[in-house]
Formats: sequence, C-alpha cells, structure tokens
Amino acid sequence: MDERIREHARILVEWSARIEAGDDVVVVVGMDAHDLAVAVAEQLGEKGATPVFTYSSGELTRAYQLAHDGEFEEADHELALYENADAVLALRGGRNTSATADVPSETRQQAARADQAVREARMDTDWVSTVHPNRSLAQQAGMAFEEYQQFAYDAIVRDWEDLAERMALVKDVLDDGSEVRIVKEDTDLTMAIDGRVAVNSAASVAYDSHNLPSGEVFTAPYATEGEVLFDVPMTLNGKRVRDVHLTFEDGDVVDYAAAQNESVLTEILETDDGARRLGELGIGMNRGIDRFTDNILFDEKMGDTVHLALGRAYDSNFTTENADEANDSAVHVDMITDLSEDSRMEVDGEVVQRDGQFWFEDDF
Amino acid sequence: MDERIREHARILVEWSARIEAGDDVVVVVGMDAHDLAVAVAEQLGEKGATPVFTYSSGELTRAYQLAHDGEFEEADHELALYENADAVLALRGGRNTSATADVPSETRQQAARADQAVREARMDTDWVSTVHPNRSLAQQAGMAFEEYQQFAYDAIVRDWEDLAERMALVKDVLDDGSEVRIVKEDTDLTMAIDGRVAVNSAASVAYDSHNLPSGEVFTAPYATEGEVLFDVPMTLNGKRVRDVHLTFEDGDVVDYAAAQNESVLTEILETDDGARRLGELGIGMNRGIDRFTDNILFDEKMGDTVHLALGRAYDSNFTTENADEANDSAVHVDMITDLSEDSRMEVDGEVVQRDGQFWFEDDF
Repeated sequence: MDERIREHARILVEWSARIEAGDDVVVVVGMDAHDLAVAVAEQLGEKGATPVFTYSSGELTRAYQLAHDGEFEEADHELALYENADAVLALRGGRNTSATADVPSETRQQAARADQAVREARMDTDWVSTVHPNRSLAQQAGMAFEEYQQFAYDAIVRDWEDLAERMALVKDVLDDGSEVRIVKEDTDLTMAIDGRVAVNSAASVAYDSHNLPSGEVFTAPYATEGEVLFDVPMTLNGKRVRDVHLTFEDGDVVDYAAAQNESVLTEILETDDGARRLGELGIGMNRGIDRFTDNILFDEKMGDTVHLALGRAYDSNFTTENADEANDSAVHVDMITDLSEDSRMEVDGEVVQRDGQFWFEDDF
Repeated sequence: MDERIREHARILVEWSARIEAGDDVVVVVGMDAHDLAVAVAEQLGEKGATPVFTYSSGELTRAYQLAHDGEFEEADHELALYENADAVLALRGGRNTSATADVPSETRQQAARADQAVREARMDTDWVSTVHPNRSLAQQAGMAFEEYQQFAYDAIVRDWEDLAERMALVKDVLDDGSEVRIVKEDTDLTMAIDGRVAVNSAASVAYDSHNLPSGEVFTAPYATEGEVLFDVPMTLNGKRVRDVHLTFEDGDVVDYAAAQNESVLTEILETDDGARRLGELGIGMNRGIDRFTDNILFDEKMGDTVHLALGRAYDSNFTTENADEANDSAVHVDMITDLSEDSRMEVDGEVVQRDGQFWFEDDF
C-alpha cells in the first residue's frame, strides 16, 4: 500500500474523527475509493472500533432515481443505521464527477426531501468527509493522476496540530475585532464581524470541522461596503465563471459583473433576498493547497486566499443571543480572491495579512 | 448495459426476493459487482422500494481483522440496519477469491461469533444471495471471462416458474416416498426419507430458497446403506479431492477412499459423530449448469446430478414432530455424483430418473 494512503487514513481516524475503541462507525465508500477504505479498515481495527461499510456511487443513485416515480419514501433502515452510529467517515471518489448529470433537478429535490431525516441523523454523529485522489478527480483538476495524488496528499497529510495553533491566532483576532477590510486591485471591501464567533476549521470534529482537508478560519460578516474582485476561476451551476466583481452598499450587492457567464451570477443573486448578502468570510490557510482544482473542498482552503459566500450563514458563527441575525438563503455560493500578492487584510485598522504573510510570520 | 445483467437483476428482485413498493432493502455490493448493483438499483427504483447499499470486500475484512486485537464487539448500528430491513440482496463478486487467505482461522471465528446477532437478523429478512460473474470467478472456474459470463447467465436467467413446477413433481414423489435408491457404476445406495419434507429450492423466498441460481430438490435421508462414488471433482478444505467412495452401514460411513487427498476425507469424518452420517440428499435440476466450476452455489445445482452431504441437516426438511431427528454436526460437506448416463434413481422401487431423464420427461 502507498504509505500516503495509510497516513491519510490515520489522520482521518485519529485527528479528524477522534475514533476510539468501541465506536460504531459507518464508512461510506465511493466507487473508486477502495484503497483508502482498506487503509481505514486497518485503522479502525487497530482502534477496536466497529465499522459498517456502505457503498456510494452516482451511477447507482442515477439508476434508482431515474427509474423511480418520484414518490420517494424515508429509509427507515438507513435511519436506524445512522441513529446507532457514533461516527461517519465519507470517503468520496467516484469514476465520473458527472455521473448524475441527466437526473432532472426536480427528481433530485424529491429524493433529497425524503432523505432529510437520514441526513440529519448523519450530521448528529461525529462525521468527516474526505476525498480519495483518483483519476476522475485528477481529470476534473486538469492534472495527471500522479500529479493530482501528490497535490491531494500535500493538502491532507499535514501537521494539523501546528496549523490549528496558527489558525487559533487568526480566530482570536476575528473574535476580538469589529471590522475586516480587504484591499487589493479592484478591491476595497469592509465587513462588520462584531459579535460573531470565528470557527477554527482544523479538519477535526474536536474543532467542529468536518472536512479533510480543511484549513480555514471563517466567520459571518454583515454590513458589507465597497467592491471586491474574485480572480480565482470557479464553476457555478455547472458553468465556468471568471473575474466576478461585486459592489456592496449597506450589506447588499448593488452592482455586479463577470468576465464570463455573468448570467449565472444573475440567477444566483435573484434567488432570494439573502442571496444578495454575504453569509461567510473564510480565510484560507492550508498552504498545501497551491492551486485551483475546481473542487471547492480544496479551493476554498487554499493558503493566502479569502473566500466570501453569498447566501446562507453557518450557525456555528453565532451565539444563542444573536442566532436570529444569521443570513438566511436557499444558496451558499463561495467565491475566492487571491491575497498572495499586492494585497492586505486589516482588522480594526491593523494589518493582519500583507502579500500572503500573516502578522505572526517571519516574512511579514 | 449488457441486457443479461438487467435480466439478472429483474429475476433477483421480482422472482427471487419478491420486492414490493415500500420495502426497505439492503443491497450488499461486492467489490466487483458494481454493474449488477446499477441494474438492481434500477429495478428497485421501478418497484418503489427503498435501498441502502453496503460494500463487501474480503480486502476490507482482512485489513480490519488482521489489525484488530480479536476482542470483536457486536455491531449495534449494523444490527439496527438489518432489524429494520425487509429484504437483503447480496451481490457476490470480489476480485480475488483468496482475499482473506492469510487471516488466522481463530481470528475469523472470533469475528464470526461477534457477528452472530447481525447474521441472524439478516436471515430473518427475505434474503437472497447471488453472484455477479466477473474475472475472479471466471479464473476460479478455469474459464475465459466471456465464457464464464455465458455459463453464469445460462444458470441464472431461466424460466424459474417452469422449473419450479417440474421440481414440484419431484418434491411430491419424495414427500410421498419412504426410500430412495441410486444405482450406477460403483454405486448402489439406499436411504430412508420417510417422514421428511422435501424442499423445492426454486431460487425464491416464496419457496424458502435463498440462492440465485438454485434449482434442486433436497431432503434429509437416514438409515443409509450401500456404496456411492462421487465422480465430480471438488475442493474440500482448500484441497482438490477426486473420486470419493463411501460405504454405509445402518446410516454410518464404515469405509471410505479417495483417488486424491484422501486425508481431507479423514479429517471431515473424524469431526464428530454426525459427520459420518448424511444430512442432505439433493437432486440437481438446473440444466443451465452443465459443468463443474469449483463453486458450490453452482455445482450442486447442476442438472442430472445428485449431491449428498455428510453432516448437518437443514431444519426445513423436518416437521415440528420430528425436528429432533435432524442430523447434527459441525460440518456440512456436499459431494456430487453424475447421474446423466448409465444410472437410475428409484423411489420405493419405481424408477424416477434414468440416464438423466425424469419420468415426466419425453426422453424417459
């Protein structure tokens, strides 16, 4: 076995999911994630945990949903499985990222509604989602397979404890701060963050962080003012969108443009009122991720980037007192801007990051 | 999709498992049974059933069991899954039939003991086990892949309703009969069957038959007298055994020989008292199976063969009154003899099969 796969499994089981002896674990195995599943099985055996392996494939989902009349029912047996599980490890990796492309969105939505209780039961466990680097994902990233493997393991196999400590410094500044300002070419944006709780997303359930890799600190901004250019390309609603430029006044988008597929932006902004406001400010701090691969799980964690999401905010950024202030929307659309050069981020007027270096780093 | 795969799935879901709208189904997907799983997903969608797909791989089992300290625990979440399931469809098909070869038998037994409640919950459902013909199984059978596919589908894609009717004729004769006699070269064996209930194993839960393919009528003989030659080669305890010859007196094996690996026979017969008596007489009636492939699921169903098992009898051959007469043993070892030529089977002195033809067939 490739030692990197074993290391991936070890980090997933130990650091991310904190599996202990006696834990009842569901391992969701993607069609092309078998090798990682073998390594995870080994780790779970060492821990003395008890796994059930389920099989996840877009091809099965497609065949089932296309043949069904649409009156989907709740899966009582699947619900019982998750209600009796302590942890869920989802090992993503199919053979075709477009495997369900021809399933009508109406059918998907009907199936998703029937799946709600199961989804909630899964979210009530110590769940972690990760990705097994395979050829399909390499293709999506426009990379050779072995090149993609190295890219993925650089992002995943890290000293997470060290990164968590560095991210804690950023979290503290955001928790104590009232306003964030980002300045670069075509960008001068200020956002209020007073009263909001930043999350140190360190790829571990111990940090309320459920993706591996992770590596971002995020909060929920409001009262946004100014302009911002998202110069990292992205795929939104299946279409490539470039150089999105947004102008905010009093928290709302009042003007927008994009160099490619601007109409996708129109669709998103017209979804509902919340879609015109920000739901997330995320600071990417995983320097193992050094390029855009058209996979948001990686892209938004990229070191020296910031992402802002239009739409729904995460509950974890609020206290019981201000939970009702969370921006609500049917969408949550992440867009990324590069802060590695000719840029700065300020909190309450103090520069905390300049040209990709944080104040606590030697090259600042 | 290969139309034979779709037909296999249709027979599995409709004829074998009798799946109906609203059924909660667990589909166990072997590592190399994906294509059949897609076809089964489609059938379950059409029926309006609700599936959970689990993943079965000897490689995961091996990695988990080898890493574990041996104190396996009951899987509460897996138990809940099966206790809430109406049916289980096991789609067998790994990539290496020896995937767990280096797991110590002690470890396997420990794991099997911890799995007992889950196994029983699974057996309490309408479960069916089938095989997706793949390269690993083709290799085991000593056949080319496409040759093996055709062999498997000939066995599986049949007119099961018609075969069930023909097997019902044989079941009736056995239920009404007191004694079966088999005569061929080096074989003249009589067995009592009075009071026993023959099972029409027609590959459907409606017939209390849980394997696809099936196609045999079996009962539980006793008071066996005479000699029998098993001229179909077989693998017992991992070793190839040929031309087993057994001599019975008053139900017990009193003499035995084999042309190859006779010591395996010694081991089996010395297991316990029950291992020296017969637990099953099975009449193979699936003429889609025309050759030995070293897979008992197929071999024992071969048309124009009879198999006898040393050891444990099946409960289904007994009534509540005579259940205590069922032969008990730790083993159940099937051995097969060819009745296609120069042979006859009699029930109470009437010839019911001669040279492979039953009394109700035109060429009898």
